[in-house]
Amino acid sequence: MIDRPSCIDDDRQDPLSAIRDAFELSDGLVYLDGNSLGPPLKGVRDHVARVLEDWATHLIGGWWDDGWLNLPLRVGAMIEPILGAEQGTVVCGDSTSVNLFKTAMAACRLTQGHLLTDADNFPTDLYILRSVAQLCGRRLVEVSSEELRDAITDDVGVVAATHVDFRTGARHDLVDVTRLAHLHGAVVVWDLSHSAGAMPVDLAANDVDFAVGCGYKFLNGGPGAPAYLYAAKRWHAEMTNPVTGWFGHLRPFEFTSEFIPAEGVERMRVGTPDILSMAALEAALVVWEGVDLDQVRRKSVALTRRFIDLVDQELGSAVEVLTPRDECHRGSQVSLRLEGAEKLIADLIGDGVIGDFRRPDVARFGLAPLYTRFVDVWDAVSAIRRHL
Amino acid sequence: MIDRPSCIDDDRQDPLSAIRDAFELSDGLVYLDGNSLGPPLKGVRDHVARVLEDWATHLIGGWWDDGWLNLPLRVGAMIEPILGAEQGTVVCGDSTSVNLFKTAMAACRLTQGHLLTDADNFPTDLYILRSVAQLCGRRLVEVSSEELRDAITDDVGVVAATHVDFRTGARHDLVDVTRLAHLHGAVVVWDLSHSAGAMPVDLAANDVDFAVGCGYKFLNGGPGAPAYLYAAKRWHAEMTNPVTGWFGHLRPFEFTSEFIPAEGVERMRVGTPDILSMAALEAALVVWEGVDLDQVRRKSVALTRRFIDLVDQELGSAVEVLTPRDECHRGSQVSLRLEGAEKLIADLIGDGVIGDFRRPDVARFGLAPLYTRFVDVWDAVSAIRRHL
Repeated sequence: MIDRPSCIDDDRQDPLSAIRDAFELSDGLVYLDGNSLGPPLKGVRDHVARVLEDWATHLIGGWWDDGWLNLPLRVGAMIEPILGAEQGTVVCGDSTSVNLFKTAMAACRLTQGHLLTDADNFPTDLYILRSVAQLCGRRLVEVSSEELRDAITDDVGVVAATHVDFRTGARHDLVDVTRLAHLHGAVVVWDLSHSAGAMPVDLAANDVDFAVGCGYKFLNGGPGAPAYLYAAKRWHAEMTNPVTGWFGHLRPFEFTSEFIPAEGVERMRVGTPDILSMAALEAALVVWEGVDLDQVRRKSVALTRRFIDLVDQELGSAVEVLTPRDECHRGSQVSLRLEGAEKLIADLIGDGVIGDFRRPDVARFGLAPLYTRFVDVWDAVSAIRRHL
Repeated sequence: MIDRPSCIDDDRQDPLSAIRDAFELSDGLVYLDGNSLGPPLKGVRDHVARVLEDWATHLIGGWWDDGWLNLPLRVGAMIEPILGAEQGTVVCGDSTSVNLFKTAMAACRLTQGHLLTDADNFPTDLYILRSVAQLCGRRLVEVSSEELRDAITDDVGVVAATHVDFRTGARHDLVDVTRLAHLHGAVVVWDLSHSAGAMPVDLAANDVDFAVGCGYKFLNGGPGAPAYLYAAKRWHAEMTNPVTGWFGHLRPFEFTSEFIPAEGVERMRVGTPDILSMAALEAALVVWEGVDLDQVRRKSVALTRRFIDLVDQELGSAVEVLTPRDECHRGSQVSLRLEGAEKLIADLIGDGVIGDFRRPDVARFGLAPLYTRFVDVWDAVSAIRRHL
């Protein structure tokens, strides 16, 4: 039998509990929507104010004096350890959609065969992949999540999938899908938007080819924060960026007529980097220094398990747990299917318990190991019980 | 004979002179690089701080409570009058390069025939257009600026050019090029990065098809500010966005598997909008309220003419004026060609006169009608004389 005091006790013993203090989160708030928009770190306001001051003081000189030109690589370097990525493989900028477009196009051009994805992929990923397939004159095969592995055959050129499903919280086996893809001569493009920052993804160890992800969910970069793009070193020389902007050039400030792609992951850059928003993300990433990702995953598993256990204990059969009960198959959110999910979420928000609703009948709760407390889980499930 | 007092006198009589007070520019600074990065408006710091506060307070709710979802259209609506564009034709977001990619692809798909541009186009435009041509299986013909008009024949599908040349300050005849293109059944894509905000561009009156431009030059949105994209209403139903992100969907929050493009210019949106940077641009655009664009152009012409006259008077044949002397053919900058241009610019910066250097031998001075003073022009040319 789980009760509130036992949850408070778990928070006391949680080695990550002190990190919550770095966030602007009031004590009474149960914020379970960090998989949609992370809360601000306390250091962000000052850092952004400093960048505005730099702009006023150095004007155009800021590009050199304040290192704005290479901010996308510096922020990329801060993201690399979170992804288990090698140095020089991650660059920050553009939106996740634009980055998926670039990497999927690059992946297509490196391979033969059709594109493969799962039909439950995040909508923007499906839309983008269809456009990429059309532009490359390839087929895009869309199968169910369960069929994804079996659909990886020698005819496949590119496997593109989202690691953790935004609706259900179900998780693809990144290790095995990547291994299978390589076995069949395909390359993988992973969208890590709903996983990186809540668990290790070990891109280097798993030999992942390409990946993209979001700066504003578990990385807490702020509304619409720039996204990131990862490309394994073995592809750097060969990969091509379809959106050949000047910042992907080897020497952009020589303004040459000929496009000479930069040598590293920089060739996937496009236009002038968005300094203000990227600076907010930079300030948010500071919190990751010294954080043990295995501990992050352990807490994520414990939080999601606690949520599911409490649903079973407190809510019985009134709701269906959509998220896999086997931790090997889930990310860091719990999704409940129930009639009246939309009203429930609205009622909960009135109580200071923030989750979100996804059509047609899903109530979704994101558990962010850096600031979600076990007592938040208790309070959330208690509030759900009151409203059912 | 022009002297410093007469320049001060011109500033006194300048109907736009009071606007400079809205900018964070110290009195002693001669900032002639606003065609590269505009200075901050005084209102920007508070506005950005407010958005950070909204994020902390409303968290995910900010997308609705603070209207972030439609910020790209609201900021677009603030840009429309600056472009002489109809309501509902401009959207803010992404970089200029990404927007050029999207509009040039859309234009290609609406037409037959090859792409045409001038070889002096801004490098990123050339790079992007080559990629677009390749993806569409078309030819890109690159001619000199002077040959552009003659090269518009019935074989051309898309004419893409930058209104004002970043190197020389020479200006294409937007009216005539657009008219000629239409006469031959082609559509135009204008890059307004170096013109909009320094002169009227009258997109609606000139029947322009597509345009893109930069938020951080004459619009003063901050380093790497989001760009904008214009599409004439007559193309809204037919045009397609190659980067089919979820924010270009008619109803993104229904998360449907099928991509149904939004009805207006919104279909050219891609990913989640970058709120922080866009808010800075929003705060910068407030300065345009009530500003008469013809007056802006008149001042721009007067400033550039003053600069050229002073070069003639003070510098003689030591430098070559690269910018057209005929105001009908120039934008809002003066470019000088001289040996040692790079050192000159460095020396000037030491004096608080900020211009910039463009390889191999060009010193470039941008004159921004909202804050550049006639006395700035005097002081700049005097400083150049001292250093020659």
